[in-house]
Order: sequence, then C-alpha cells, then structure tokens
Amino acid sequence: MNDGIRVTKTTSPKPKPKDSTLAFGTEFTDHMFLMDYRDDKGWYDARIGPYGPLTLDPATAVLHYAQSMFEGLKAFRGTDGEIRLFRPDKHVQRLNNTAKRLCIPAIDPEVVLESWTTLVDLDRDWVPRAVGTSLYVRPTIIASEPFLGVRPSKSYLYFVILSPVGAYYAEGMNPVKILVDAKYVRAVPGGLGEAKASANYAASLYPQEDAKHGGFTQVLYLDGVHRKYIEEVGTMNLMLRIGDEVITPPLAGSILPGVTRDSVLALLREWGIPASERQVSIDEIVEAAGKGTLEEVFGTGTAAVISPVGELFYKDQHIVVNEGRIGELTQRLYDAIVAVQYGTAPDTRGWTVVV
Amino acid sequence: MNDGIRVTKTTSPKPKPKDSTLAFGTEFTDHMFLMDYRDDKGWYDARIGPYGPLTLDPATAVLHYAQSMFEGLKAFRGTDGEIRLFRPDKHVQRLNNTAKRLCIPAIDPEVVLESWTTLVDLDRDWVPRAVGTSLYVRPTIIASEPFLGVRPSKSYLYFVILSPVGAYYAEGMNPVKILVDAKYVRAVPGGLGEAKASANYAASLYPQEDAKHGGFTQVLYLDGVHRKYIEEVGTMNLMLRIGDEVITPPLAGSILPGVTRDSVLALLREWGIPASERQVSIDEIVEAAGKGTLEEVFGTGTAAVISPVGELFYKDQHIVVNEGRIGELTQRLYDAIVAVQYGTAPDTRGWTVVV
Repeated sequence: MNDGIRVTKTTSPKPKPKDSTLAFGTEFTDHMFLMDYRDDKGWYDARIGPYGPLTLDPATAVLHYAQSMFEGLKAFRGTDGEIRLFRPDKHVQRLNNTAKRLCIPAIDPEVVLESWTTLVDLDRDWVPRAVGTSLYVRPTIIASEPFLGVRPSKSYLYFVILSPVGAYYAEGMNPVKILVDAKYVRAVPGGLGEAKASANYAASLYPQEDAKHGGFTQVLYLDGVHRKYIEEVGTMNLMLRIGDEVITPPLAGSILPGVTRDSVLALLREWGIPASERQVSIDEIVEAAGKGTLEEVFGTGTAAVISPVGELFYKDQHIVVNEGRIGELTQRLYDAIVAVQYGTAPDTRGWTVVV
Repeated sequence: MNDGIRVTKTTSPKPKPKDSTLAFGTEFTDHMFLMDYRDDKGWYDARIGPYGPLTLDPATAVLHYAQSMFEGLKAFRGTDGEIRLFRPDKHVQRLNNTAKRLCIPAIDPEVVLESWTTLVDLDRDWVPRAVGTSLYVRPTIIASEPFLGVRPSKSYLYFVILSPVGAYYAEGMNPVKILVDAKYVRAVPGGLGEAKASANYAASLYPQEDAKHGGFTQVLYLDGVHRKYIEEVGTMNLMLRIGDEVITPPLAGSILPGVTRDSVLALLREWGIPASERQVSIDEIVEAAGKGTLEEVFGTGTAAVISPVGELFYKDQHIVVNEGRIGELTQRLYDAIVAVQYGTAPDTRGWTVVV
C-alpha cells in the first residue's frame, strides 16, 4: 500500500470482557478498519479509527439489493505468546473471488492482508488467552451508493471489525444432529453458492429455524437439481468417512470453498488417507450406514474447526454415525489443526501469519 | 393502528426537481416513515420524520447476512388531480409473504397501508405532474440487531422512502433486446425466488452486466433444474402471445408474483383472451418463432408497467418478435393499466386507493 493506513486511536477504550464470559460475535474491540471505493478514485483512504456506527442514507444500495459480502477468519494467541492468523492468504483470495461474482471491485491482496494484520496488532490485547478462545476477524464489503435501481453500485465501503470469541467446545466436543433437508435449497450452479455473499445466508435462515424447531443443530442441503447429492451445511462443509475413504462434495459451483475444508484435505493427503472430492448421494450414505461402513461424519468451518456429526435425519430415517461418538479421524484432524493455530505444533505448511 | 403515527415535519424542505429532469431512484422527498421491532415489544414507534441517514453499528445483521427485503409501488397524480396508489393491498400481502420466508415478523396490513398513505399525503406536492411520471414508494425492512452469527435478528427496522420518478417511456415505447441466459440461475424452487428478498437482486447483478456488455437490456433466466423453461427477467415477469394464447410461467416457487403480472392476467380474462399460466420451454418459443406464431413478447413490472420485447437472443439465435415492433395486445394492456393509474378510465376493479 503506497500511502499507508491512517490511524486514529480511540480516546475511550472499552473494558475488555473476561475470557470465561465470551460468546460469539456480540462484543467488539476498540477499533475498526475502513476504506472507501469510488468509480473515479478506486479504493482509497485506508484508515483505522474507533469502533463506531456507520452513517448510511436510507437509499444505500446494500440495504435494498444485498450487494454485500464478508469473510471470516481468526487470530489465535499461541502458548508461546505469539498471535497468529490462520491461512489469511486463502481468505484474501476468496474475498476477491466473491467480490467478482457480486460486481464489487477487487482489492489489492496486500492491502487486504495489511488491513487485518494492522488492526489485529493495534487491538492485540483483545485477543483472549483461555484455551480455545480467539479473536474473530470480520472483513465486510457493502455497496454504499444511495440510489434505487438494479445495477452495481458506484461506491463501496470495505470495513473490518474484530470480536473476541469464546471456546466453541467449552463444554466438550459433542456430536450434533443434522437434518438432511429435502424441501429447501441453498444454491445451485449458476447462482451465488460458491461466493461468500451475504445473500446466501438470508436464504438459509428459514430452513435453519425449521430444523431447530425439530431439535436439529444444522441443515444439510441437497443439490437443487437432482435433490439427492449432499451439498453443505450452510456454515460448514461436510465430510464423510465411508470405509477407508474420506469423501466431501466437489467445488462445483454451489458450495463454499471452505478454508478448513481445504486444510483437512491437505492433512489427509499428507497422512496418506484416501480423500475424494466427489458427489455423494444421500442414498449412498443411507446404504453405507446400513452396511456398517459409515464410520465418521463431520463438518469443517472456521467457527468450530471440526464439528463431529452423531446423526443425520432424512425423511424419517435416523442415520446414527459411530454410535453417536466422536470418530478417531475427526479428533485427529481437530487436534492437528488446532495445534497449528495455537503454535503448539510447528507450522510446516506456511499456514499461519504471525502478527 | 392504535397509537397513530408520530409526525415530525422537516424544517428545511428541499427544492423539488423539475418533472422534465426526473430519473429513477436518485432523488428523495422531504420525509420518511420509520418503525422498529424488538422481540419483547413487537412493532412499535411508528413515526414520520425528515428524510435523513440511518445510524447503524458495523455489526448490524443486514450488512452481513442480507436479512432484508423491500416492496416497490407507485403513486400517480391523476388528470383529475387525485393521487392514487396502484393495488397497494397486493403489495402489502406480498410484503408479509416475503417477511415470512426471511424470518422477519409480519406487520399488521393496516399499519403498512397507513404508512404509505400517510407519508404520500404529507409529501403530496412531490408527486410529479408530467405525463408518465409518478412517485415511487419504497418500503424496506432490515435486520437491525448488531451481532455476528447466522440466525434471525431480534430487532428490525421498517422504513419507507419516496422518490419522484420520470416517465419510463419519455422517448417512446421501444421494444428491447433480451438475452436468454443459459449460464446463470436466478433461483430454484426451495430458494428465495418468490420472495422480494434483497438477496435475489445481488445474484442478478453479474448476469445482468454480462448481458449489457453484449448489447442486451435484460436477462431472461431459465429454470435452474432443467435449464429449459423460462422464468422471469429479474425485474419483470415475462409474457408471450403464441397464436391466440397468452402464456406466462406459473408461480411455482422460483419467480416473483408480480402485481402487474396479476393485473395483466385479470384484464386478459375480462377481455376473453385465453391466458395460461404454464411452463414454456425456450424450445417451444424457438419453434413458434420458426412457424411464425410468436406474435408478441412483453415484460410486466411496476417500473415500466409493460415493456415490449423485440428480440430474444438464445445460443446464437436471434428470435425476432413481431418484426421488432410493439404488438397490438402489448399496447392495449399498457393503455388500459395506465388509464386506471392516472384515473382517465374508471377503476371498476378496486385497484386504486386515493390518498
């Protein structure tokens, strides 16, 4: 970045929450990063200032047409005292891929990375210390032009906020129950499914509430064309171990290319465990369960890292996985990734960036 | 509404634009309507105040997860001096249908209607006078809770803004060229397609820009499952006259139930013209064009009322409609609806509400 980031520090720092009371996404640090875009200027005025409200005209495009997107990654305070971002390069890349699909102008990858490292560094005392806690980094881009009409905005606001978050598994890693949804569709090829577009999440709220009322933690979507191949969980990618093969749906346009998904596949290949990115029908899963070869099922995502699945429910069938217990490989993957994140294992793959 | 609408008038009214310079959605009137929702209070504090910016925490849910929606309708200044809203009851109904799909709490239909009539009445001098002009009414609901996480918000803001808009056909009604898109998908059954969700518009930006670069005005989407049945145009429903039959795709979950679409179907039925809501494949259209029975094609929507289509372009085939001229029925439908809107024909169907 040529002209650097202008920093205005807060004069009234907030009290920091106790590590033990942290939730997810409800408390924010002292500062935020902001940068504007105008068609005639490009991206300009990179700045950090006190965390505070945005002032938006009621006609601002983002409020009407959802031309908005985000990323989500975490900074971890290692046992060695260092603060590490996990695979920020992959998040930068995905940010610009999403931007393209939404007609949002790309941002120089170095500027994006710098916005994260500079902000986290400034608010580094906000990175919690307790086991399993972290600082969640939320970069967001919104269409900022005030006009009504369906066309790309001519101005945008890129901002980054930080939220200290509690341990996902504060009460231990418990396998969850997931509803395989035969009614609602998250995305189809040709749509927004592979982008981290705000719009995808709007579509998932109703199916998810529906599932919660039925006692399920999440929804596993089936593909919108055949209604038989599994897609993703809305906030996680899904993986299955059938016999000795680990299987996850391919990145064919309708599911999000998860960074944790990518990390898991890399580890499996390193470890010599067969891992396939291929279509899996719900029928294949039911059949494997019947034959006793459905060994493990787990979700992968930034929030939970690895989330063991104890049961899939599909059309009145309870598909119980590994007697509802955490699988051996599930646990091994979780431990391996968390070790890199907290610096207790060497980062041999260039996955972390020290702030 | 029990406790009425609290009105705070502006102390600095803006100069009104000339009717001849009006565009669409770029200028706004002196006032706006606002109402809040909280889980523990329901919808409360209905108020009108000066048009001005909203103050939103950067973590506000709408900016991240697109839990937002809108409606769009028009107020017309009749040749008799009266100001009329066109079919507001249909828009109120659709507003609450959309809200349900997005987990947004419903609003009392009477309160919604009152928010429109009261605001338009207060800013009635802003309703332009020139032929073809109108006052566009934009009700919007956004998730207003500041938190990160994929779940419905616990608070919402409903607001209404008004924009005086120019004549859509200021330079005469010219048939447009439309690209039949074989690559991108707008929505599938099980998704958000039948809701007026902001999210649907985010998905349409890229395909639309793509089409514009090719010299087309709009995109006609095909269904996301078979990729052969026509859906809608993103901002309009589509109708075809093949021989003596008028055909439009059915409301089967993936297209918006347009109010103009409904009005056109009602008129056709009154006039004894066969009108079918059924699936039409692009192949059927190509075949009809080849046989010379593709008589007319037009879009229906609030912005243009009726938009004649002169050409459909599909996979290197130019499907020219009625030699690129406006069809007889297309013109008749336009004239009939516009006459009701401006009060030059009697409203025999209860379609207008005088403000």
